[in-house]
Amino acid sequence: MSQELAARLREVAERVNVALDALLPRADGPETRLMTALRYSALDGGKRLRPFFTIEVGRMFDADETALMRAAVAIECVHTYSLIHDDLPCMDDDDLRRGRPTLHRQFDEATALLAGDALLTFAFEILADPPTHRDPQMRCLLVSGLARAAGPLGMVAGQAADMEGEHIGSDLIAVTRMNRLKTGALINFSVDAGALIGCASESEKVSLSRYAHDVGLAFQMVDDLLDAEGVVRDTGKAVHKDSARGKVNFVTVLGVDATRERVGMLAAQAKRHLAPFGPRARMLADAVDFVVERRY
Amino acid sequence: MSQELAARLREVAERVNVALDALLPRADGPETRLMTALRYSALDGGKRLRPFFTIEVGRMFDADETALMRAAVAIECVHTYSLIHDDLPCMDDDDLRRGRPTLHRQFDEATALLAGDALLTFAFEILADPPTHRDPQMRCLLVSGLARAAGPLGMVAGQAADMEGEHIGSDLIAVTRMNRLKTGALINFSVDAGALIGCASESEKVSLSRYAHDVGLAFQMVDDLLDAEGVVRDTGKAVHKDSARGKVNFVTVLGVDATRERVGMLAAQAKRHLAPFGPRARMLADAVDFVVERRY
Repeated sequence: MSQELAARLREVAERVNVALDALLPRADGPETRLMTALRYSALDGGKRLRPFFTIEVGRMFDADETALMRAAVAIECVHTYSLIHDDLPCMDDDDLRRGRPTLHRQFDEATALLAGDALLTFAFEILADPPTHRDPQMRCLLVSGLARAAGPLGMVAGQAADMEGEHIGSDLIAVTRMNRLKTGALINFSVDAGALIGCASESEKVSLSRYAHDVGLAFQMVDDLLDAEGVVRDTGKAVHKDSARGKVNFVTVLGVDATRERVGMLAAQAKRHLAPFGPRARMLADAVDFVVERRY
Repeated sequence: MSQELAARLREVAERVNVALDALLPRADGPETRLMTALRYSALDGGKRLRPFFTIEVGRMFDADETALMRAAVAIECVHTYSLIHDDLPCMDDDDLRRGRPTLHRQFDEATALLAGDALLTFAFEILADPPTHRDPQMRCLLVSGLARAAGPLGMVAGQAADMEGEHIGSDLIAVTRMNRLKTGALINFSVDAGALIGCASESEKVSLSRYAHDVGLAFQMVDDLLDAEGVVRDTGKAVHKDSARGKVNFVTVLGVDATRERVGMLAAQAKRHLAPFGPRARMLADAVDFVVERRY
């Protein structure tokens, strides 16, 4: 990873943490347990990759930084909610997340369920509020976009398809579709939100959306490679989960070598979609390498 | 209940069912199980009391019927999601809802969790979409209002307080606050949404909000009376739950007689808040009697 990208990722992560801390309900009033729980998950030092995409894309168009940050925070709230619910016993039943106990392990299942519900709802409150953007039309587009990416025809559908893993068969098309929904839709929206706030042209939006599509798929393939080959110490979560559960993913369908090869192809293709933006898109191009080379 | 109110409630419920059926994702494509599940809960013939409030209040101001119906449907999606999650084993662990197996009983826990998540998210998609209202400012106000009513400082906080029931003590103030959040906030928003779409004046909004406050509290007190005295056949759900779990509610704090007395006072007060609207508010006044006299 380039030093410049590392610095940029760190800067975004720090600013996202500050913004989340300021926006989330305090933990010192009533319902202390709920608020402490949602802060435990939301402020746990994730990579903040989705906020990075929103902010970095928006900066290419000199977009308003407050709008970008609030959209980024809303997206990260939705991402965090999805991890909390995905970790629950009735879903993946995971004990570790980012190297710490998962929320229902640290607190309890009811609190984890409610903290997820709260973060999902709060994301829409952030987006719809006037400080996000002076133009209510823009705020509506952000709400619609996030709801579509996360809802019954987006991320939730992907989770449902994942749970029915054994039924979808060892079919590359089915696995690709499931991942497009489960992780791709939100990554796509994180890029789209930056383009939207930045008032990118239609053709710029298309190029960026294709970039997001390829990065999202590569990201998931690397996740599957890490699950197959990674160690807990690096990833901060349980590994070898999918094969142990008989779940299908890119590695179980394609094997390690062919998956790695596709990651390389997708990475090259993602960078080609950035060509229209020239050197302005350098950080986004570097981010492709980061996604591909990451060990966690 | 007056015959006119009965007809009006029936009409609203039928139209809400038609609108929900048209708006919710079809169950004949992929993720059939998820879509079948969310339709099972959303189309299960509830009272549709919240949609009734939104539509009836809006009609007093000759508001656009499409806007009212879409807001009503969004609110009902959020209400349904809250029931699904509230019934889960880690929450109230209920087997019956509206006389049928709860969603996780009929399907499974993961599907119920995801169906709730999907309905919550979908509510915001409905509100933010242009068909809801030509003015994006209005759509943003609806999104904000619903998110605030349902989120970490609204309904979710109420659920959290309810789960910690044994800790809040037998304190009327605490029980009232918990219920204001848990059920009151969404009932209030269902009235507020009608006033908002109807462009009611500030003083009209205040009167209606006070009406909603009193109806909401009376509604919850009747719920607690039914839990203490009701029979499964009438309510369609388990009874005597709160006392069996050592949970506090209005009846455990005040006793049956004092709770019933307060219900009567709140009902009278709610009707007084409707005075400024004269005969236009007749259905809303009748609805108070319905809430108070209901056996289910």
